[in-house]
Amino acid sequence: MDGKAYIASLDDGRRVYVGGRRVGNVGTDPAFAGMVAKIAATYDHFHHDPRARDAFMTPPTDAEGMRAQAALHVDGLSHATYTSLMTLLTAADRIAAARPQAREAVAAYVAEVRAKDLRVVECITDAKGDRSRPPALQDDRDAYLRVVARRPDGIVIRGAKLHISLAAVAHEMMVIPTKAMKADEGDYAVACMVPANAPGVSIVDVGNGEAPAGADPRDFPYASRDSNSQGFVIFHDVFVPNERVFLDGETKLAATFAHALGLWVRASSMIHICDSYDVMVGLAQLIAEANGLERIEHIKSKIAEMAINATLLRGTLEASMAHATRLEGGVLAPDEVFTNAGKYHGAAQYGTMVRHLLDIAGGSAITAPSVRDLENPEVGELVRKYMGTKQSVDGAYRTQLFHAVHDLTTSAHGGARYVGILQGGGGLHTQAVVTRGRYDMARAKRMALESFGWKDPSEESALAAE
Amino acid sequence: MDGKAYIASLDDGRRVYVGGRRVGNVGTDPAFAGMVAKIAATYDHFHHDPRARDAFMTPPTDAEGMRAQAALHVDGLSHATYTSLMTLLTAADRIAAARPQAREAVAAYVAEVRAKDLRVVECITDAKGDRSRPPALQDDRDAYLRVVARRPDGIVIRGAKLHISLAAVAHEMMVIPTKAMKADEGDYAVACMVPANAPGVSIVDVGNGEAPAGADPRDFPYASRDSNSQGFVIFHDVFVPNERVFLDGETKLAATFAHALGLWVRASSMIHICDSYDVMVGLAQLIAEANGLERIEHIKSKIAEMAINATLLRGTLEASMAHATRLEGGVLAPDEVFTNAGKYHGAAQYGTMVRHLLDIAGGSAITAPSVRDLENPEVGELVRKYMGTKQSVDGAYRTQLFHAVHDLTTSAHGGARYVGILQGGGGLHTQAVVTRGRYDMARAKRMALESFGWKDPSEESALAAE
Amino acid sequence: MDGKAYIASLDDGRRVYVGGRRVGNVGTDPAFAGMVAKIAATYDHFHHDPRARDAFMTPPTDAEGMRAQAALHVDGLSHATYTSLMTLLTAADRIAAARPQAREAVAAYVAEVRAKDLRVVECITDAKGDRSRPPALQDDRDAYLRVVARRPDGIVIRGAKLHISLAAVAHEMMVIPTKAMKADEGDYAVACMVPANAPGVSIVDVGNGEAPAGADPRDFPYASRDSNSQGFVIFHDVFVPNERVFLDGETKLAATFAHALGLWVRASSMIHICDSYDVMVGLAQLIAEANGLERIEHIKSKIAEMAINATLLRGTLEASMAHATRLEGGVLAPDEVFTNAGKYHGAAQYGTMVRHLLDIAGGSAITAPSVRDLENPEVGELVRKYMGTKQSVDGAYRTQLFHAVHDLTTSAHGGARYVGILQGGGGLHTQAVVTRGRYDMARAKRMALESFGWKDPSEESALAAE
Amino acid sequence: MDGKAYIASLDDGRRVYVGGRRVGNVGTDPAFAGMVAKIAATYDHFHHDPRARDAFMTPPTDAEGMRAQAALHVDGLSHATYTSLMTLLTAADRIAAARPQAREAVAAYVAEVRAKDLRVVECITDAKGDRSRPPALQDDRDAYLRVVARRPDGIVIRGAKLHISLAAVAHEMMVIPTKAMKADEGDYAVACMVPANAPGVSIVDVGNGEAPAGADPRDFPYASRDSNSQGFVIFHDVFVPNERVFLDGETKLAATFAHALGLWVRASSMIHICDSYDVMVGLAQLIAEANGLERIEHIKSKIAEMAINATLLRGTLEASMAHATRLEGGVLAPDEVFTNAGKYHGAAQYGTMVRHLLDIAGGSAITAPSVRDLENPEVGELVRKYMGTKQSVDGAYRTQLFHAVHDLTTSAHGGARYVGILQGGGGLHTQAVVTRGRYDMARAKRMALESFGWKDPSEESALAAE
Repeated sequence: MDGKAYIASLDDGRRVYVGGRRVGNVGTDPAFAGMVAKIAATYDHFHHDPRARDAFMTPPTDAEGMRAQAALHVDGLSHATYTSLMTLLTAADRIAAARPQAREAVAAYVAEVRAKDLRVVECITDAKGDRSRPPALQDDRDAYLRVVARRPDGIVIRGAKLHISLAAVAHEMMVIPTKAMKADEGDYAVACMVPANAPGVSIVDVGNGEAPAGADPRDFPYASRDSNSQGFVIFHDVFVPNERVFLDGETKLAATFAHALGLWVRASSMIHICDSYDVMVGLAQLIAEANGLERIEHIKSKIAEMAINATLLRGTLEASMAHATRLEGGVLAPDEVFTNAGKYHGAAQYGTMVRHLLDIAGGSAITAPSVRDLENPEVGELVRKYMGTKQSVDGAYRTQLFHAVHDLTTSAHGGARYVGILQGGGGLHTQAVVTRGRYDMARAKRMALESFGWKDPSEESALAAE
Repeated sequence: MDGKAYIASLDDGRRVYVGGRRVGNVGTDPAFAGMVAKIAATYDHFHHDPRARDAFMTPPTDAEGMRAQAALHVDGLSHATYTSLMTLLTAADRIAAARPQAREAVAAYVAEVRAKDLRVVECITDAKGDRSRPPALQDDRDAYLRVVARRPDGIVIRGAKLHISLAAVAHEMMVIPTKAMKADEGDYAVACMVPANAPGVSIVDVGNGEAPAGADPRDFPYASRDSNSQGFVIFHDVFVPNERVFLDGETKLAATFAHALGLWVRASSMIHICDSYDVMVGLAQLIAEANGLERIEHIKSKIAEMAINATLLRGTLEASMAHATRLEGGVLAPDEVFTNAGKYHGAAQYGTMVRHLLDIAGGSAITAPSVRDLENPEVGELVRKYMGTKQSVDGAYRTQLFHAVHDLTTSAHGGARYVGILQGGGGLHTQAVVTRGRYDMARAKRMALESFGWKDPSEESALAAE
Repeated sequence: MDGKAYIASLDDGRRVYVGGRRVGNVGTDPAFAGMVAKIAATYDHFHHDPRARDAFMTPPTDAEGMRAQAALHVDGLSHATYTSLMTLLTAADRIAAARPQAREAVAAYVAEVRAKDLRVVECITDAKGDRSRPPALQDDRDAYLRVVARRPDGIVIRGAKLHISLAAVAHEMMVIPTKAMKADEGDYAVACMVPANAPGVSIVDVGNGEAPAGADPRDFPYASRDSNSQGFVIFHDVFVPNERVFLDGETKLAATFAHALGLWVRASSMIHICDSYDVMVGLAQLIAEANGLERIEHIKSKIAEMAINATLLRGTLEASMAHATRLEGGVLAPDEVFTNAGKYHGAAQYGTMVRHLLDIAGGSAITAPSVRDLENPEVGELVRKYMGTKQSVDGAYRTQLFHAVHDLTTSAHGGARYVGILQGGGGLHTQAVVTRGRYDMARAKRMALESFGWKDPSEESALAAE
Repeated sequence: MDGKAYIASLDDGRRVYVGGRRVGNVGTDPAFAGMVAKIAATYDHFHHDPRARDAFMTPPTDAEGMRAQAALHVDGLSHATYTSLMTLLTAADRIAAARPQAREAVAAYVAEVRAKDLRVVECITDAKGDRSRPPALQDDRDAYLRVVARRPDGIVIRGAKLHISLAAVAHEMMVIPTKAMKADEGDYAVACMVPANAPGVSIVDVGNGEAPAGADPRDFPYASRDSNSQGFVIFHDVFVPNERVFLDGETKLAATFAHALGLWVRASSMIHICDSYDVMVGLAQLIAEANGLERIEHIKSKIAEMAINATLLRGTLEASMAHATRLEGGVLAPDEVFTNAGKYHGAAQYGTMVRHLLDIAGGSAITAPSVRDLENPEVGELVRKYMGTKQSVDGAYRTQLFHAVHDLTTSAHGGARYVGILQGGGGLHTQAVVTRGRYDMARAKRMALESFGWKDPSEESALAAE
């Protein structure tokens, strides 16, 4: 499929709503224009260079391969497709014992997606209703997506999945349980694939609201390139044929898909955060230089603190790859302790990075004139004059830096970026729980005892049992 | 002047640019509609209830009065006018010895502004060019606003002032030096008043970009009510008659206006931050309850940390009023150490408050559907169903809370709000410097020496001199 | 009682153990010499100036009185006596309805203590055993102190109380429940007074380990003056006559004493922390000056951060007194929200204060030579020469500052001081819980709703109920 | 040399002062007993297993070797000897061009030290006087160690070196400049080796003050094993023969030794901090379990935060070894950016680790009875009873854990440990400066520009130059 074919493929009768209106054709609607163009470009690139596609879609089997793949930058939907297929393959191996047909079904499905060159998104987070109660005790039992009917040829599902990036412009939705389920929650232990235009599916999307309508893209250099709309996907009694059902009622395996997904999502999230931190350090240094502040002590201290944080994250990312775990099938997955600790620190300190960047940039991060003002024949020259720093730092260049700072941090796009980093792969609490759970506590306890002279840890129990 | 007259008064030939275009009439242009309406409403209110106006415009002389005034909420432009006039009166007292005519000139000017019921903004921050160099060593000597010509009847000024809230919709600009000036920087030691439509004045404004064009105001409950556009004001060889010049060349007094302004701005900034913190605690609790999370331990810990921060700020604000300093003329000004320490903490911890709020709210702070989606006849009922928590928490209510969280923190408005808190009244470094400078260090050193038994501080010098 | 009589009164047969040995006479044993001397000095002072004693022992009834009393510095045991008697009087009022005889018993007891001029300590924290279980489910039912027998003339108690400052040198122990008790925990709901030398009482004390034996007091200026030993007090089947029992089985009132005590302890703890913060700022500035570092930017930043923290605490303390609550009987108690938030911040940031102080002082905080080395005839002059900074900062003076920094932070005394600040009046978690519980959440929620335009909070329920 | 010979070798006439007294024989004086015994044990071990010694003394040439050496634990003096010799060899290569004789002199010296099996300490930090002034502008020109006379056969040096761990029990002192020197500071650019008993050398030592005299070592499990006394070493006109002078006046090379030392010191400091963090996590978990608190949410959160910090450090350490730099001669040195960033974070967060540990342990970290109290026949059983948690957690075991927590953090030893971590290899500011200096800022700036679409970094200069 090339870009043109991809755009055409979106006109398939899907029900997409933005700001209260029904979208006619997602492929041509202005609300999605930026995203669609970017995804189409990847299609074109892969169409002309299938080796690039293979390089991206093949999971790495050694540390070098991990680093190489980490350095590839493709559009978010291609990335989601890769993550989804990896999740399916990883999970299928794990559930094969309990549900033998799933492995073949997954293999057939993955082959089909590859053959048709489709794009897939992950639908995991349920509406959840009252988060203090389990699925079956909700006032509305549909708060978690569930099977409402079983037929000889398939199942009928009902519920909603939230925070689905790029749902409106994908072909397929991978629906999986959001968490482990208990023995009596069989109707909620369901994993299956649903086409975006299946009857009963509605996508309520926030659209491309990150870049203000009519704004000059140069004033929003990130929003105009990197916006990924988010969809609220409703499954209202959607029929799914058996060959697309990979889990139905096997409650013990409900968490398998989410765990497999978490592995891939947190790892790519960690890479993204790492790069973001380096970008913020670089931007802070550029704006400090553009403001003539690069030799001021308190500015240097703030940049040093930013660089230290970026280095800690980079080191942790490197360690997560150096200590990767080999999964079934030889695929490598980054070490979970390092990944979760790094993701936690990156999300927890992101606000500090933003504060330092804004602190160094100053008020013009919000009040810089538009690039169009610089071009206005009446006032443009004066704006440029006063936005300039000195002969070697032109006002147009500096203005552009301010827009970059603004759009990275304090625009609607910057806000969405922050929430993505904070909530992606589970929030701070989740990362903390996973780190504590996977941290080698037995070794730490042994080190503690030995550190004050109890060489043999069995002394502990000896003393305790006296 | 009532609201209608105010709106009409803006059609005075001023040169305002937004997004590269020249605005015809600020009073009726959509880019300023929200602001103008809000300011007009205060005009109407004060027009019908002159005592309300007097209560607002009269500086407090006791702690009770300070608290009462702190509790008044008027539009930002009326507030800026009050602050500007207070600054002028405070500074005039201080410079009377060196420039006797200034006191009378200020008095006459203030009387005129009150009689005509005009609105005034503070123009303080210069373009600054290379911030590591003083005004006279800039590549462009206009980087700081300066007097370029002196005539028998007045002066001609050239330069630009940045980050001027509501400049486009005010009548008068109070131009004052941004910092202390040295003996050879006399041309930069200038304070004067300039009408918004004076020849040579251009206002390049960011406009009301905080609330996206066409968006439902209910999705942006803060941006649609509280947006204050920021102007970049250029003074290109503007003539100012003598009676409007309050400082010209008295370099020793250059910082007087900025200090007086700082006093009033930081105090009102502190009140604003205090209220914001309580609002964020309340919103965090509301959204925790709406999510069914209010009894989860880590959520409670985060809300507790937020409440502790809000309480520290409130306590510091209370202390700043309890220890207020009486200025010349009996007016009270909040204590500077408490105000600056509180402002610092409020700005430094704001990011943590936001993080906790977003952490508790979850991804729907970004991905919640529009209120218009709730009203769509095809899909609205389903959206409401899945946005609901339980019978007692309706989906429409919860959706609205998410929009409030979003618009307070991660929308373009939220970003502007953050920068305002961070940079208002000078950035973090400024507050730190002022706190250290005003903190009673002599007392602290004495307490330190006494704490380990050197009862008489003169022992210090005795020992040191042995 | 004067100092001499106090010392004699300690030779009363009490059983005190230190480092595994039984102490013969606490009044003359070296392990307690510093403490005993300090307490005796207060006795002498009060003996000669009874008005000073009255001023200290009378609870304040207005804000001025609160400030005056906060400024008084007496020894820790006199302070504990004041706190204990205040606790008894406050609690007696509250429990009078359920146990009428308690009010009179307390009044008689307080009168007796005052007449005999005795010293009282608070015994609250139980051994607690497994902290995840309630008293009655402990493997050892004595983990919480309880009544093991009831006789016509009194009760018999068994258990241990931990962390009792100055227990070894006091006359009376106020035994109160450590927490609220449930209906079936009547044996644990016991409050009574026990003389230090009652049969069955053993005090296992850490002794004056904070100042190393044989060390020069000038090297340990805080430990040698402010050390308060801690006792582990065991009540092994101790008989308490009825007139000294103030609670026995009234489980609903079990927490009354602890709450009353908490009020007074946290308030005095807050004053202590506030002063400590100012002392640390002063010491940081003194050592920075002594090192010739007071103009280095990063040093100034650290001192500014310390001063900001000290100011926040001071402001919160001021607010806690300005918003004091009037108790039964007209006595004023500081506001609990401000007190707890301030206590939390002071304990949480204490480590940062210490780090900055050590950072500014440098390695000599640990490695400075003894004052005795300065006096050594062979090497003293050289030590002084190299410990000096410049002509105006003598080596002997600077050495003394290093010892002060060391002893305030990194000596055994410094460590005990930190734990006292961290755990005094309950740990961080307790302060967080109390702050959240007492914070005016209803007001914050109302402010949040109003902030985005829901003027009438009843709209909330209206929306929620639709 | 074996342990006995080492002890005998210390009786060489050296002048050592502790607490104002001259020590007769360091090898047998109680003030150094613990240290001497520990060092002697390593001598014995190496004497009987020379391969162990070679394994320790040979610098690694691959990552595996780095990890293996990092895992070896020897006494601090052997470690200092290794670090000193590595520093000499590294620096000798670097200065060979300017001072050819240095390389041979170093080689001969190192061979001699190895042959005689001597122990060497690093003497780097000068007295410094007024730290805001350079050496030549000090009131006392000896504030930095300098050459006061040059003779045909050698030089005479004068000055003092501070914070020298184990100086009193070493054989040789490596004297090197503390920082870069300017062209006119030739007398301060001196590096040479001095025997501990050379005429004119005085060592004023703090002695083994970390473990209180007479205390039970079980109550101080760290101090009694790991105390390293610190010496203030005075060089009062000490003659050094030419063959022991490795730098004299080559100001451009003054910093070479300090840089080489810094490399090795920060790397081993980083390993030490990493291990300390894991020990603190383990101890926190052990004490939480011993207190019955391991399932309480806020305790788990604190342990999770500790584990996250430990993991960040471990990851950064791993990365510093994976990206090691190969020095002249094939020796590997850990990457400096990772090492400094990790060291910074480890030192900056150490206080938080301590706070969490103390928070979880509770007041008994300070007030736990002595192990000797547990053994007292009268009261021991009761102490054990009340220090116990439940049947599976004995009071003796739990008491020991409290002593470990205390001695690791809040005893005099804990304080010294903290300062060592904070100041070792330079303080926080130094690490921040080095990290910012070595961080690949050019790459970060390029990433920043590319991130908002300026693919070719030359656009930057293009724009800037327009």
